[in-house]
Amino acid sequence: MLKQVLDEGRVAADAALEQLLPAATQHPTSIHQAMRHSVFAGGKRLRPILCMEAGRMTMPKPTGALPAGIEQLGAALEMLHTYSLIHDDLPALDNDDLRRGRPTCHKAFGEAMAILAGDALQTQAYEVLAQIHCPAEARVAIIHEIAHATGTIDGMIGGQVVDLEAEHKKPDLATLEYIHRSKTAALITASVVTGGMYAGASASDIERLRIYGQSIGLAFQIIDDVLDVTQTSEQLGKTAGKDTAAEKATYPALFGIEESLRKADALVAKACTQLDPFAGRATTLKELAHFLVERKN
Amino acid sequence: MLKQVLDEGRVAADAALEQLLPAATQHPTSIHQAMRHSVFAGGKRLRPILCMEAGRMTMPKPTGALPAGIEQLGAALEMLHTYSLIHDDLPALDNDDLRRGRPTCHKAFGEAMAILAGDALQTQAYEVLAQIHCPAEARVAIIHEIAHATGTIDGMIGGQVVDLEAEHKKPDLATLEYIHRSKTAALITASVVTGGMYAGASASDIERLRIYGQSIGLAFQIIDDVLDVTQTSEQLGKTAGKDTAAEKATYPALFGIEESLRKADALVAKACTQLDPFAGRATTLKELAHFLVERKN
Repeated sequence: MLKQVLDEGRVAADAALEQLLPAATQHPTSIHQAMRHSVFAGGKRLRPILCMEAGRMTMPKPTGALPAGIEQLGAALEMLHTYSLIHDDLPALDNDDLRRGRPTCHKAFGEAMAILAGDALQTQAYEVLAQIHCPAEARVAIIHEIAHATGTIDGMIGGQVVDLEAEHKKPDLATLEYIHRSKTAALITASVVTGGMYAGASASDIERLRIYGQSIGLAFQIIDDVLDVTQTSEQLGKTAGKDTAAEKATYPALFGIEESLRKADALVAKACTQLDPFAGRATTLKELAHFLVERKN
Repeated sequence: MLKQVLDEGRVAADAALEQLLPAATQHPTSIHQAMRHSVFAGGKRLRPILCMEAGRMTMPKPTGALPAGIEQLGAALEMLHTYSLIHDDLPALDNDDLRRGRPTCHKAFGEAMAILAGDALQTQAYEVLAQIHCPAEARVAIIHEIAHATGTIDGMIGGQVVDLEAEHKKPDLATLEYIHRSKTAALITASVVTGGMYAGASASDIERLRIYGQSIGLAFQIIDDVLDVTQTSEQLGKTAGKDTAAEKATYPALFGIEESLRKADALVAKACTQLDPFAGRATTLKELAHFLVERKN
């Protein structure tokens, strides 16, 4: 059941990305090839899937189907996620050669092109968001939500900055929570919240999605930190053990692995409780929450 | 008269930027300081001024005043322009130490922070655009126009890519025109076009603004190329002669200086002709067009 949701969601997100990204043969071809190299690298499309399922669950008149066209919103979220990965991997930042088991963008296309490909994926995301198929009022609210979630104040870039500055320092809990909340949870939260906005969800339903998103987003990052310690590079499809090497602030460094896993489980339970009013319609998002902490890569 | 427009426009744009950028004391402070370092570096604010004056000229019921709140749109355009400068200056791209007479962002804050500061200025621009004070339908049209103008297809990033790839090759006219049209003219065109959209201009007035913008944008870049050859680094406030050093495709390289200046003048004349139907209301934008080709830095 969950496997079907994940498979169908990935196929829908991939089809939207295929349609919404410039073709690899489009002039100037080099940058479009670089963008596609990183977007089509075997990602699970978790953010689009969370977005689409949040929309399905909160439609004012639920049909069981997805809100029409919501996969385009999902594709824009995936473009933003991919842009952040490309720039994080650059030599001046995490200096990573491997991502999802393939050469990172700058390894394959050079550093200048990787910087521009990341820039272009952010730009393309907003070009797509300006045209998604919901009322203009909802579109500007969605754009605002996403821009804020990926910005410097409690958003993705802010988390990345504090993460960089926390290297080679003894981690403290406040810093660690800021990093996790901002770097990862903010975009995951925006994915479910904007899925609800797209579907026309009520303000109270959107608030429930926000708490769900914040909880699973934090759980997701805790598990990411744990996997960095417990899995091999081959299992992860990216360089393992690099948090420890960089003396990064992580949950395992602060609490140990067992306690970190316990915290992640508690967050998933909190997320699921928020969805209880949706009864049977919440099954998929609840299963997705459990999936995020049980994954192995 | 024009001096007053330039001075007042710069003050209005600076005030909006001051208000719309996170404070330098806002956590995480390092990135906000890096963003402000590059934004408040003595720029002329040409894109905001062109935007505001296009709005003033095309308001359906012109009052002589600026459309209320249009300086926020201008500020977003300046954020996008600054993001492109920060990334262009990076070691992997133009590797420039000096910009507007000050150290470039990566020289002052390091390469990682400069990459993230550029990213963040793009993000912040869209967060601002989602909230500017015009109807939601106009906001999404403006966001679409700007995202396309800064993207890979006939937009700013596309121009940058082709510019990079044209180094150390004999320039041909088609490539040169693509670079100039995309790298510089596209955002200048979007500045005047979105100024008109913000003001509620008619479709035909917006079309006139588009031709005006394309013409002055191309003239602007021709003059930029000429100044790179004829002025010193001190006069320019940035490294002079670097186009020649990189064997870049430029108008002076292809046509010589005299013929390049003649072409720029012809483009300004074409731009001004487009504005004839606005009679006296077009005076400022016509003077701005002449100013762009007569500037010395």
